[in-house]
Amino acid sequence: MPRASQQTPILDDPKLWAERIVGGERAALARAITLVESKRPDHRRAAQQLLTALLPHTGAARRIGITGVPGVGKSTFIEAFGLMLIEAGHKVAVLAVDPSSGRTGGSILGDKTRMAQLSVNPGAYIRPSPAAGTLGGVAAKTRESMLLCEAAGFDVILIETVGVGQSETVVSEMVDFFLVLMLPGAGDELQGIKKGVLELADMIAVNKADGDNQKGARAAASHYRAALHITQPVGETWTPPVLLCSGLAGEGLSEIWQQINAHRDHLEEEGTFEAKRNAQQIRWMNSLLTDRLTGLIEEDDTLLAEKQRLEAALIAGETTPASAVEELMDALQASLRRSS
Amino acid sequence: MPRASQQTPILDDPKLWAERIVGGERAALARAITLVESKRPDHRRAAQQLLTALLPHTGAARRIGITGVPGVGKSTFIEAFGLMLIEAGHKVAVLAVDPSSGRTGGSILGDKTRMAQLSVNPGAYIRPSPAAGTLGGVAAKTRESMLLCEAAGFDVILIETVGVGQSETVVSEMVDFFLVLMLPGAGDELQGIKKGVLELADMIAVNKADGDNQKGARAAASHYRAALHITQPVGETWTPPVLLCSGLAGEGLSEIWQQINAHRDHLEEEGTFEAKRNAQQIRWMNSLLTDRLTGLIEEDDTLLAEKQRLEAALIAGETTPASAVEELMDALQASLRRSS
Repeated sequence: MPRASQQTPILDDPKLWAERIVGGERAALARAITLVESKRPDHRRAAQQLLTALLPHTGAARRIGITGVPGVGKSTFIEAFGLMLIEAGHKVAVLAVDPSSGRTGGSILGDKTRMAQLSVNPGAYIRPSPAAGTLGGVAAKTRESMLLCEAAGFDVILIETVGVGQSETVVSEMVDFFLVLMLPGAGDELQGIKKGVLELADMIAVNKADGDNQKGARAAASHYRAALHITQPVGETWTPPVLLCSGLAGEGLSEIWQQINAHRDHLEEEGTFEAKRNAQQIRWMNSLLTDRLTGLIEEDDTLLAEKQRLEAALIAGETTPASAVEELMDALQASLRRSS
Repeated sequence: MPRASQQTPILDDPKLWAERIVGGERAALARAITLVESKRPDHRRAAQQLLTALLPHTGAARRIGITGVPGVGKSTFIEAFGLMLIEAGHKVAVLAVDPSSGRTGGSILGDKTRMAQLSVNPGAYIRPSPAAGTLGGVAAKTRESMLLCEAAGFDVILIETVGVGQSETVVSEMVDFFLVLMLPGAGDELQGIKKGVLELADMIAVNKADGDNQKGARAAASHYRAALHITQPVGETWTPPVLLCSGLAGEGLSEIWQQINAHRDHLEEEGTFEAKRNAQQIRWMNSLLTDRLTGLIEEDDTLLAEKQRLEAALIAGETTPASAVEELMDALQASLRRSS
């Protein structure tokens, strides 16, 4: 018989592992995240047992999402921001949602290299994005990793996203506060903000506002203030501030942290903080449920082929969407009956 | 035995009714839309047969979505715009997506009253929103009604929405061109554009740009141009024009029609028109499929109660979203096995 894998102890005794994680054992946390990221059915079950055991120890962290286009200086910002928070007594975990990332040694090395000081700081824990997969799958694993980090005592969770496709939206759905980093400049650089990102922002910070960039950064900030003024939805009680900062020079970072705290106070005073987190939980559950339900078709080769045939017939003008869906549902129910 | 209902002829002979609709019989069109809006399973089946028979006669119309806040003058605009198009030889159908509307005599009367001239014009067909229901349900019926109107020879379809919840998004998903009407004024009136509406707009028209409003309308237009400049996504090849118009004075309407045609030419030249329509069809089918799949749970009292119990447990911190979903999927599969 093969030797039991390194994973076995967690599978055998989730409660013991929960205790080790709550006790702050870094290696236990790392292995628990690996378990959460696994697709093996027995790992999935063990991961859920572990998470359930840890739930009472979760939820106390500031959950902060950070996005920005490549080149905006996210890594430098996160390193400087994280080190400042650790200095002030916080424990900071950095997670990522990047569905395009492959999980290889290179990727992990990359994350450690680009945040060289933070990665070796005992107050920080940096974990790269789960391996490439569907956005929903990657996000679900990052959410669960966030809970593990909270249980391990990290009280600030920074979740970075590179802004591919809908990744900002899913990250904004798992955090309390969503920070959008922007580049200085008021000309063409301003164009091409990703669809909908202004609406997700709880704050915009114009990064690299140092040296010769300061004038451009102020111009950009004033443009963003105008844009937010125009796009702010009716009934929104928080006006996203637009600040300047420099990850490189370490400037503007404490103002950003103050605003994050002000936002939390605002939600608490308004009585909407718990409601926001609860709604996120319910939407998360519903999104997993939709994935599982569509998976009944998408993960069955025969049904998937039938679906593709119907899509082709639809495009060819031979059937209607409603008729196609009825055919597909009939096929699904026949398939479920056969398998029972 | 009760006499056969008025509906029976369609149920018995969809092909005959398809011929009558294509032949331009207004009464046949009206009854077909009523059939499409019915929830009775036999009506649903007959409606799909009818639509399938009519598919070769659909697709040739300009499909235009129109939104704007209450008070922006949508009815006056649509009446003036529709009459202008009829004058130019078009046949214009006006449909609506308003999930908050009740289908009562009052509602129909309302639509006819607010577009008094258009409603009696033989070149126009006005149909109020399907009865209150889920947005997806109301939208599906309006989509199908649009196909019926196309088969009946209407070559311009105006789909109005009042902008409740996500209704702009679903209307933008069924049209070729999405027009957002705005009010003049450059101050606080500008605030509170609905979330995401700027991104859906293929054109913004500042309505009521007449009399004393003209200065305010120009100021508003320049603000919207700036906002669109900032929020235009990377890779977008169509820059939404911002025009002034007055439904009341009948001004600016032909410029709007010119831009709608320019947009169509742009998509045709780019080779993306068919792709846009095909992608809409596939998304429509997938959205109906998701509705049917979630309906397996939501429309089963026992499973719905189980779902609500699990949501409560989730909020209470007793389970994780993933565990809750697995429990629910197990319950669903057990239920499907029992019923087979």
